[in-house]
Amino acid sequence: MERPDLTSAIATLRERAPLVHNITNYVVMNITANALLAVGASPAMVHAVEEAAEFAGIAQALVINIGTLSPRWVEAMELAARAATEAGVPWILDPVAAGATVYRTETAGRLARLEPKVIRGNASEIMALAGEAGSARGVDSTRGSDAAINAAERLARATGAVVAVTGAVDYITDGNRLAGLANGDIMLTRVTGTGCSATALIGAFLGAGLPAFEAAAAGLATIGVAAEIALPGAKGPGSFAVALIDALAAIDDATLAARINWV
Amino acid sequence: MERPDLTSAIATLRERAPLVHNITNYVVMNITANALLAVGASPAMVHAVEEAAEFAGIAQALVINIGTLSPRWVEAMELAARAATEAGVPWILDPVAAGATVYRTETAGRLARLEPKVIRGNASEIMALAGEAGSARGVDSTRGSDAAINAAERLARATGAVVAVTGAVDYITDGNRLAGLANGDIMLTRVTGTGCSATALIGAFLGAGLPAFEAAAAGLATIGVAAEIALPGAKGPGSFAVALIDALAAIDDATLAARINWV
Amino acid sequence: MERPDLTSAIATLRERAPLVHNITNYVVMNITANALLAVGASPAMVHAVEEAAEFAGIAQALVINIGTLSPRWVEAMELAARAATEAGVPWILDPVAAGATVYRTETAGRLARLEPKVIRGNASEIMALAGEAGSARGVDSTRGSDAAINAAERLARATGAVVAVTGAVDYITDGNRLAGLANGDIMLTRVTGTGCSATALIGAFLGAGLPAFEAAAAGLATIGVAAEIALPGAKGPGSFAVALIDALAAIDDATLAARINWV
Repeated sequence: MERPDLTSAIATLRERAPLVHNITNYVVMNITANALLAVGASPAMVHAVEEAAEFAGIAQALVINIGTLSPRWVEAMELAARAATEAGVPWILDPVAAGATVYRTETAGRLARLEPKVIRGNASEIMALAGEAGSARGVDSTRGSDAAINAAERLARATGAVVAVTGAVDYITDGNRLAGLANGDIMLTRVTGTGCSATALIGAFLGAGLPAFEAAAAGLATIGVAAEIALPGAKGPGSFAVALIDALAAIDDATLAARINWV
Repeated sequence: MERPDLTSAIATLRERAPLVHNITNYVVMNITANALLAVGASPAMVHAVEEAAEFAGIAQALVINIGTLSPRWVEAMELAARAATEAGVPWILDPVAAGATVYRTETAGRLARLEPKVIRGNASEIMALAGEAGSARGVDSTRGSDAAINAAERLARATGAVVAVTGAVDYITDGNRLAGLANGDIMLTRVTGTGCSATALIGAFLGAGLPAFEAAAAGLATIGVAAEIALPGAKGPGSFAVALIDALAAIDDATLAARINWV
Repeated sequence: MERPDLTSAIATLRERAPLVHNITNYVVMNITANALLAVGASPAMVHAVEEAAEFAGIAQALVINIGTLSPRWVEAMELAARAATEAGVPWILDPVAAGATVYRTETAGRLARLEPKVIRGNASEIMALAGEAGSARGVDSTRGSDAAINAAERLARATGAVVAVTGAVDYITDGNRLAGLANGDIMLTRVTGTGCSATALIGAFLGAGLPAFEAAAAGLATIGVAAEIALPGAKGPGSFAVALIDALAAIDDATLAARINWV
């Protein structure tokens, strides 16, 4: 398995402070914005058809998350994705609950063909996007991340994107290389928006100029290690969510290097 | 007054981990999702006309909350309510600020006729839905919950739903039986979304298979007792909201039984 | 520089408990509602064209924030602003990211002509609204607040509104008078929605009956002093955001008077 070089990833992100354009779901906008601010990015949520493409062109990265969909939002997502690609702005797709409804699966599939640099999802979502029989149950996966490695590799080759499957172990592949990360904690699944925040962090690393494979690894390692730092002081998912943001603001490259757990 | 049997309600909920479909308002989506995760349910927020009905049919319960309304959302609420009823999926209505504007009162009234299993509101909302002269002031009630008992009983008989009126004392009625609960704390009124979260928790208990009267009592008792557990460690409404989620994750049936305060 | 009289501002607000109607962005609805509850106001988020004007007429103040725009929301904002002005209900405009896209700049400009009592923004936003060459970078300002004093004065004279520019020093002007406040902390820029919450607090003071200049100063002083109280107990932006709400709930006029830092 690969171990991409993440030396100075966080310092680079904090120095460049990329403007990250998010078209994301209502549930997680607040935690996503706070996670991005904590690591040093500048988040903006802009979804109107009237301005999404213009904004995508001035941002350093674009995050598209289909958690709460409707037709005008999908239209803006497609406009923004095309504008980003045209302007050379990297973008990442989070296909939330792909496989759960026809509308979601089709929308995610259409977006995946618009040249995202990274796609991040849980096992069910990645398997659904890769065309495998669904195993979605709402927004949660019914399968472990290892069950989706083959699907992730196929999806990466089909779309040209780096694909990240998150779970107890996070896998990252570009269709040839494969990396695995075993940081984080089950508590991350008890707080809404941590997966979406992981996606946004990857977007921030893309915006800081990291290559897609490194950006995906850096984003997942950062939130995984931050979760481990947050955990001992937490009394439950409420205080864990608060401590996670504190940890994201405190984390640096030395901490990351010391605690990263490659598979 | 009735004392419905709640033995093993929480254990049942955690074991069954129902998928709870929410069409709820923007303000509370995050706290609602976290409250549902904390008690062991699997929340999903799905509001598009294109998928709401399909999703309502695969969930174990549906929560409809009219806090932030617009025509396409109302359309999705009605589609989802009909689909849930047709599929035998129980659903609960939260008529936020019914009585405050014509649009809200009419929308709540139309939804109430689509066979919700439970309706939960404050005194003003329940009185408005039952056709009594309004006493709403924005989203807050100007009346104590006891003032709405008659309205709740009439509304229950007219709609077939169990009706819960929350306040200093929470009342639950199916038109014949009446139960009262005096758990909770005034601090719950200082944090946005606690009433909406109570509604969602009742939805989770419905999704776990409890009958409507028991589900309503279990949901209100759970958040009321959790609030009492959260209160001593809180320095104000900010830390109280965090501690409330921690308490919801920690609560079990023995704690509930020991602290529940029937009227 | 002016020092408006804020004696008993907070006591007045808590006593009158104004109903504050918000049409604001998705990212900050939750923190805004909790900030308003903490200081003793009654928040409501109502955005549908079908009810926004009706609701604006029954509230004590209206807050319009363009953070996440789309055409139907803009339509509701304009309807609500007109209805508020007609009913004598004071309203405040937060021109989030004006200058960042054409759509945003035009929308903010149109709203600014509908007689808001107060306009609050960062330096880039106020300069953009006053017609100066843009310096926006997403939702964050690239300029210090002092760079926008002239623009603020011109904007105040052009619109009749009191204009508040926030930053390391907050400036408030009605085109003739000028006040400066140096409370707060850089940590406020690390949590999403604190600027939007400042706007909402000014709205609450307007709703409590304070004149616009005093309301603007009271709102900014309240959140600035609360931030200073929250800071020592915080371990990072996550726990700071929680402590800020606690501090807003605890603050009183004596604390404000003792800590307010006029320039």
